[in-house]
Amino acid sequence: MFNLEKNDRETFARIGKFYTAHGSFNTPVFMPVGTVGTVKAVSTVEIEEIGYEIILGNTYHLYLRPGPEIIKKFNSLHNFINWRGSILTDSGGYQVFSLNSLRKIKKNGVEFRSHIDGSKHLFTPENVIEYQKVFGSDIAMVLDVCPPYPSKYEDVKEAVILTNEWAKRSIERAKELNIKVFGIVQGGVFEDLRRFSAEFLVNLDFDGFAIGGLGIGEPKNEMWRIVEEVVKILPKDKPRYLMGIGKPEDFLEGIRRGVDMFDCVVPTRNARNGTLYTTCGRVLIKKEKYKYDKNPVDKNCECFTCKNYTRAYLRHLFNTGEVLALRLNTIHNLFYYFSLIKNIRQAIIDDKFNEFMIKFYELQKEEEND
Amino acid sequence: MFNLEKNDRETFARIGKFYTAHGSFNTPVFMPVGTVGTVKAVSTVEIEEIGYEIILGNTYHLYLRPGPEIIKKFNSLHNFINWRGSILTDSGGYQVFSLNSLRKIKKNGVEFRSHIDGSKHLFTPENVIEYQKVFGSDIAMVLDVCPPYPSKYEDVKEAVILTNEWAKRSIERAKELNIKVFGIVQGGVFEDLRRFSAEFLVNLDFDGFAIGGLGIGEPKNEMWRIVEEVVKILPKDKPRYLMGIGKPEDFLEGIRRGVDMFDCVVPTRNARNGTLYTTCGRVLIKKEKYKYDKNPVDKNCECFTCKNYTRAYLRHLFNTGEVLALRLNTIHNLFYYFSLIKNIRQAIIDDKFNEFMIKFYELQKEEEND
Repeated sequence: MFNLEKNDRETFARIGKFYTAHGSFNTPVFMPVGTVGTVKAVSTVEIEEIGYEIILGNTYHLYLRPGPEIIKKFNSLHNFINWRGSILTDSGGYQVFSLNSLRKIKKNGVEFRSHIDGSKHLFTPENVIEYQKVFGSDIAMVLDVCPPYPSKYEDVKEAVILTNEWAKRSIERAKELNIKVFGIVQGGVFEDLRRFSAEFLVNLDFDGFAIGGLGIGEPKNEMWRIVEEVVKILPKDKPRYLMGIGKPEDFLEGIRRGVDMFDCVVPTRNARNGTLYTTCGRVLIKKEKYKYDKNPVDKNCECFTCKNYTRAYLRHLFNTGEVLALRLNTIHNLFYYFSLIKNIRQAIIDDKFNEFMIKFYELQKEEEND
Repeated sequence: MFNLEKNDRETFARIGKFYTAHGSFNTPVFMPVGTVGTVKAVSTVEIEEIGYEIILGNTYHLYLRPGPEIIKKFNSLHNFINWRGSILTDSGGYQVFSLNSLRKIKKNGVEFRSHIDGSKHLFTPENVIEYQKVFGSDIAMVLDVCPPYPSKYEDVKEAVILTNEWAKRSIERAKELNIKVFGIVQGGVFEDLRRFSAEFLVNLDFDGFAIGGLGIGEPKNEMWRIVEEVVKILPKDKPRYLMGIGKPEDFLEGIRRGVDMFDCVVPTRNARNGTLYTTCGRVLIKKEKYKYDKNPVDKNCECFTCKNYTRAYLRHLFNTGEVLALRLNTIHNLFYYFSLIKNIRQAIIDDKFNEFMIKFYELQKEEEND
């Protein structure tokens, strides 16, 4: 199901293709986050038009609303939201562990209260796989324990031990239900715990491996150090997914260290906050200097927004709080992200990944704003 | 510039075509309201795709934001918002008179404070024409005095006298600036004042005539009585525009009384409130009964929303407060409004307007909700 197509000669970068029940997707890949059944502010038709082949859904949010019983009636989340591509769903672990006081870890699973109505629920390694089966997920994720950053060594160790136990239970249920599932490496910023976690997981028959618990406040160099350590242990013939990352430069840094898959709310959330990405850096669209600017956000961009609207108009929409601003900004950022990954992939094919990286950082120096 | 193409045999309904610097539009026509430079929640590309040939802009809002100096740099509002069709702009009168305590009527014009920052401004009959010229409006409206409902006879009379004076000043400035302009009949629910207003205006060389000050709380039958009285006086060779109206049934009632043009925030505002229009009545999309509903909003509808998404999904998006709900709902309602007017026009062409009206009301009896 994962076909590794090429390794870069100079870095750990690689390209591949992952096959699912809903087609396939090329790696490296960025997956837009479709929290509650929609990538915020855009339609599935637009996501498809940009070229995305896979999006991410959040089990925690979908479990609460619309709930598995509604999605079940539609046979899959794909049908419910009208998305023809693939869907990876997280396990809900990350969201539940962000609830802090509202949740309680038990050996069996994690008990939590809904952030919407305070109702009590239990996620277990088994039932989150079952929910993801109901969603028709092309790739399910295991329930993991995600300690915050910073955490004490002993606490992180305990989390890894429990995550490992849960991983075994998860894969068992996943095999029974015939659903593809990825394991998640935890261990905070402690290299030995990361190795312990990764070495345990690679002995289980997962379809891919995720690196979780990063990008939660630790310094960037710590994060990349951990990624490097973990990638060493992960098998070459399975995809590697760096969860919740990232910003444009993170793709280059991750890909050159051997990461294949990414997801992040940054392009969509920042779009809604008026931060737009361009080949020359970020544009903060609300700024006075764009008042009369007849240029598109990015002269090199072929997205719907750039083809139709000026910076001055986008600034006006954003500053007057118009809903349309959210969509136009989101389309642009998602297009930028898609193009960036596509260009990286092409650079690897052309044996020009290092050159591409140098060029990317050079252009970023001419940042529009900072 | 207005070509009356046909009169209905049984009613006062008629079809025509109005030519502008940005093409033309067929009448009867409904103009979506593009308050601050966008029809809320949708892009100009979508408005054009639905088939609209003209939209409305609000001078009060555009004057405050982005302001005439920005629009001037783009040569027209059309260029600024990327809209290829025609634009009718109101004079700002209605908004200013809605500000109540924030405004002061003077002989020269109306002084008001911005609802955004409290800054003081003056609209005069001349300067609102000038602003509309800056916007490149295809049809400008005169500044009028709009008393609330109910108002005393003497107050309404005073408003009509001032509106008439302003109308003379407006048309003078409009002729100097070579911009098409409509006069506005006022007079509240008092037939003699309406006649007084209309008879005064028809002697001035306006490009069309609007009926203002209706749909502000008076009973529906009062409104139609006034429309009938005014239409009797208005010339047959000029378009008649019933400002701020209406709901679907208002088109039938207005058109059969000889009205050619309409604008209203109802389809867009109601869309954002989850009220969707269908050939069988209204759908309140948040309702429990649509939970599992795999049908489109309207089985007979060819809009983007109905072609791609189910009621259950729209309900989910609306109930979770997703931005996408606002757009999908707005597209549907604007498509419904456009189709309704188009079908009415066709019915007049086919000499079947009365039949169409009977059919329309019959179907509405099977309302989905109430």
